[in-house]
Amino acid sequence: MPLSRISLRKGKSPAHIQAILDGVYEATRATFNVPENDRFQLVTQHDAHEFVYGSGFLGIERSDDLVIIQITAAGRTPQQKQALYRDIARRLTQNPGLRPEDIFISLVGVTREDWSFGHGEAQLAGTAP
Amino acid sequence: MPLSRISLRKGKSPAHIQAILDGVYEATRATFNVPENDRFQLVTQHDAHEFVYGSGFLGIERSDDLVIIQITAAGRTPQQKQALYRDIARRLTQNPGLRPEDIFISLVGVTREDWSFGHGEAQLAGTAP
Amino acid sequence: MPLSRISLRKGKSPAHIQAILDGVYEATRATFNVPENDRFQLVTQHDAHEFVYGSGFLGIERSDDLVIIQITAAGRTPQQKQALYRDIARRLTQNPGLRPEDIFISLVGVTREDWSFGHGEAQLAGTAP
Repeated sequence: MPLSRISLRKGKSPAHIQAILDGVYEATRATFNVPENDRFQLVTQHDAHEFVYGSGFLGIERSDDLVIIQITAAGRTPQQKQALYRDIARRLTQNPGLRPEDIFISLVGVTREDWSFGHGEAQLAGTAP
Repeated sequence: MPLSRISLRKGKSPAHIQAILDGVYEATRATFNVPENDRFQLVTQHDAHEFVYGSGFLGIERSDDLVIIQITAAGRTPQQKQALYRDIARRLTQNPGLRPEDIFISLVGVTREDWSFGHGEAQLAGTAP
Repeated sequence: MPLSRISLRKGKSPAHIQAILDGVYEATRATFNVPENDRFQLVTQHDAHEFVYGSGFLGIERSDDLVIIQITAAGRTPQQKQALYRDIARRLTQNPGLRPEDIFISLVGVTREDWSFGHGEAQLAGTAP
């Protein structure tokens, strides 16, 4: 169910992007109880003047390698969210080797009836998390 | 009020995209009580490595024609949401002729004071749905 | 904390875009109590058939200069939201000189534990707004 939007500066290789996508997916599998193949991810690449970040905010020195990850998902606990952040950071620092300062994550919480995975049906409506 | 973000693989014709936009708009008119001209839609097209989907998730065999539709809207009931999904699927399978497996919808619920349609005013704040 | 997505038609100059980004940031500083450097902004530019708006909706005559601003943020009051809309409109009409009809704003409310600003930590979880 999670839908991830991943934004970064233009110029990264497809392999770099693939590693980010794989890491985010694996992290949702490990911490958000996401079933296999429940993977929907969109990437947008931006020119410098289209991608603005506060380097230094909260004492974290970001670089142009910054990745902004926004994930829409239903019904996770604060503990699951913290576990997700840690697991994404652990995986993306390993591969593609991002600095931990360059991983920004924003979650958007929705409900289980807010999803249709095809056929015009609300497959998760009324199901338990 | 709904703001729709529509994401698909690069290479579709403007007519294909227009049919998707029209169908989504007409479905919000029919099921979400959206007034005429209340239409705000953004399309992004993605290269293959920027558009990743779990083909086969929930037994639904998706193809590269997949359309991911994310709609931000305020205050709809679960019944209205199910009606919206069905109506979008019905319209987009007719025109541009998508397979029902290739229609993915994600809703994001907000409040009526979360919108400004121009002039710096919150036109819907305090109004009934 | 706010994450802003700013969408407009292709063809504007970097200076035009920069003025919009600066105005939105300054408005969140002035009305949303956003600390200095808490600035994360993404811009996407669209071809005509990818950027559809109801010109005339609510009696507001929009033009192709329309800017659609979607801001994800946690825990603001209706009063703060109205102040934000007014302040964005005031600033963007001054610079880059947008018409007030061409400023569309959509907010998405989330919680303080929905953010990780780096290092895999949930820096705002459990903190007061």
